[in-house]
Amino acid sequence: MREKKNVTFREIADYTHFSKTTISRYFNNPDSLTLENQQTIADALQKLGYKENKVAQILANGKTEFIGIIIPDLYHHYYSEMLSQILSTYETFHYKFLVFIGNKTEEIERKYIQELLAYKIEGLIILSHTISSRELASLSIPIVTIEREDKYVSSVNTDNYMGGYQAAALLARHHCDVLFHINAPGSEDTPAYGRLLGFTDFCREQQQEYQIFLREFGHTYETTLAQMQSLLEELETHYQNQKKGIFVSNDTHANVLLNLIIRKYGTLPDDYFLIGFDNSPISREAILPISTVGQQIDKIAYEAVQLLVEQMNEQKKRKPVPLETPVHKVIPPILFRRETTEK
Amino acid sequence: MREKKNVTFREIADYTHFSKTTISRYFNNPDSLTLENQQTIADALQKLGYKENKVAQILANGKTEFIGIIIPDLYHHYYSEMLSQILSTYETFHYKFLVFIGNKTEEIERKYIQELLAYKIEGLIILSHTISSRELASLSIPIVTIEREDKYVSSVNTDNYMGGYQAAALLARHHCDVLFHINAPGSEDTPAYGRLLGFTDFCREQQQEYQIFLREFGHTYETTLAQMQSLLEELETHYQNQKKGIFVSNDTHANVLLNLIIRKYGTLPDDYFLIGFDNSPISREAILPISTVGQQIDKIAYEAVQLLVEQMNEQKKRKPVPLETPVHKVIPPILFRRETTEK
Repeated sequence: MREKKNVTFREIADYTHFSKTTISRYFNNPDSLTLENQQTIADALQKLGYKENKVAQILANGKTEFIGIIIPDLYHHYYSEMLSQILSTYETFHYKFLVFIGNKTEEIERKYIQELLAYKIEGLIILSHTISSRELASLSIPIVTIEREDKYVSSVNTDNYMGGYQAAALLARHHCDVLFHINAPGSEDTPAYGRLLGFTDFCREQQQEYQIFLREFGHTYETTLAQMQSLLEELETHYQNQKKGIFVSNDTHANVLLNLIIRKYGTLPDDYFLIGFDNSPISREAILPISTVGQQIDKIAYEAVQLLVEQMNEQKKRKPVPLETPVHKVIPPILFRRETTEK
Repeated sequence: MREKKNVTFREIADYTHFSKTTISRYFNNPDSLTLENQQTIADALQKLGYKENKVAQILANGKTEFIGIIIPDLYHHYYSEMLSQILSTYETFHYKFLVFIGNKTEEIERKYIQELLAYKIEGLIILSHTISSRELASLSIPIVTIEREDKYVSSVNTDNYMGGYQAAALLARHHCDVLFHINAPGSEDTPAYGRLLGFTDFCREQQQEYQIFLREFGHTYETTLAQMQSLLEELETHYQNQKKGIFVSNDTHANVLLNLIIRKYGTLPDDYFLIGFDNSPISREAILPISTVGQQIDKIAYEAVQLLVEQMNEQKKRKPVPLETPVHKVIPPILFRRETTEK
């Protein structure tokens, strides 16, 4: 377990016949040396078995190459896939990620942010933040958020409005008598609220009969199942013999509804059409593959890191010019037509 | 975006009337000061608006409080849940996590390890490593692995043998004519191989007829579906009218098989009994809740971090005594009996 002795600047200087100052410049400002001298030193480092010590370099040049990430949970596939895609950008941008999980309350989120700031992260990505965008904007580092209210900070999100509009349009094309949207009650300033708006606008424009169900499904399978069961009973009682087109706000909930219907009828009856949101694995792996509005999580993650890197690079300039107004990037959704609509 | 000026040791010394050396000792070896003096300095820091700079502290005392994590993917619920549980141990142990994802090849895994070592991580947790445990053991830091061959490194794993044994016992209790185990071909020195061994030992001890199916299911839903379809046809052809008890090596694959059967019959016929492994969400949320051998992921994660912390603390002693032999912790599985066996 004993570590090999580290090579000192003195030893590198002796070996290369450069001064210690030159060696120091090689690490902190390599472009101030000729390419030839850079190569000489690089060769010497290899010969001497020099071990990189990023922590020492950080103290010298102030750049940690750390991005902080705060994410609510990894149970929901949307979050775990997003984290996976963000971490994968290491191959492109070479930033390293310090990850905190579980920003369920403002207090916890503030604690995590303080811990990350103490480690001199160069930028921060927060998913579904709990503290206000105004407070986030007051922190002295570049920030990009995904989901939630983003008035004062930069963000990247799916075009939720377009997604809701497309879902309604697909259901309407099958000549459904009534369209339904099932969602949880949410704040109007969150991006996901656009799903409801897009759905509603389509129905109004096309004079299509529709109904919105807003229910608290809770955070467990059991509470979701109970709510969905009562919702299905309501649909069956009030819309018997009518062609029902149902847009559920996420695939996890759409799958619960689909299973309830199939457990009752052994199949998806002809008067039911169903579409979810996210393109989660469950939508493909359900008993019947579920039509869905897909979020391009890989693109959202990449754009979020790129947007952050641009701001972090600006901070490294001698006279950084901060963004005048936050940037809000919007990624188009992709419609997946599967067996719950294409019968 | 401009940062507030940092408070210097000089200013803290002036304010408290202690020497700069005393202030330095407060940060690097606080126990060398009386509790009263520690409190005086702590109060002063708050008054002066001192901002913690962990990077500077690290240089002073050599402790980064970083643990490196390398994990293959977050698509499989087993991995995302494990990462989630490991990150949650921050609340207990206060270590911060630098996370890399995608150790698909030895080359990539080595690159990630080198990057983590450059940041002076104090310890490393690797899930499903690709390089040998001998090579991992040669690194000069404490390591704990989860899954895969662990001859030369410490590890934490589910008692897979007991899980396979229990699965077979549950199926046998329903008086199945033949028991089946469906798995992918795997190396005999990986912990998950125990599932097959436990299953086989039970069948032999009880003189129960059984068959093992080892198939390459690939890494996508589509390849899994195709393999499982052909497997089901084989079962139906050769074991018609026999009571079949099937133990599938993970819940994701068990769910694929269940869906195929229900799509064919509209229900799970009386001659089929099915149990999976992991207790993934899909096992609860399937069209019929699937019986499963549950892994206690929270306990595995906690034990892994605790085992690592013990080794890291040892390293901080003046004369660290490294482990003589690797520690292999084994966590018992929990049997969940649900609708695919309890009809």
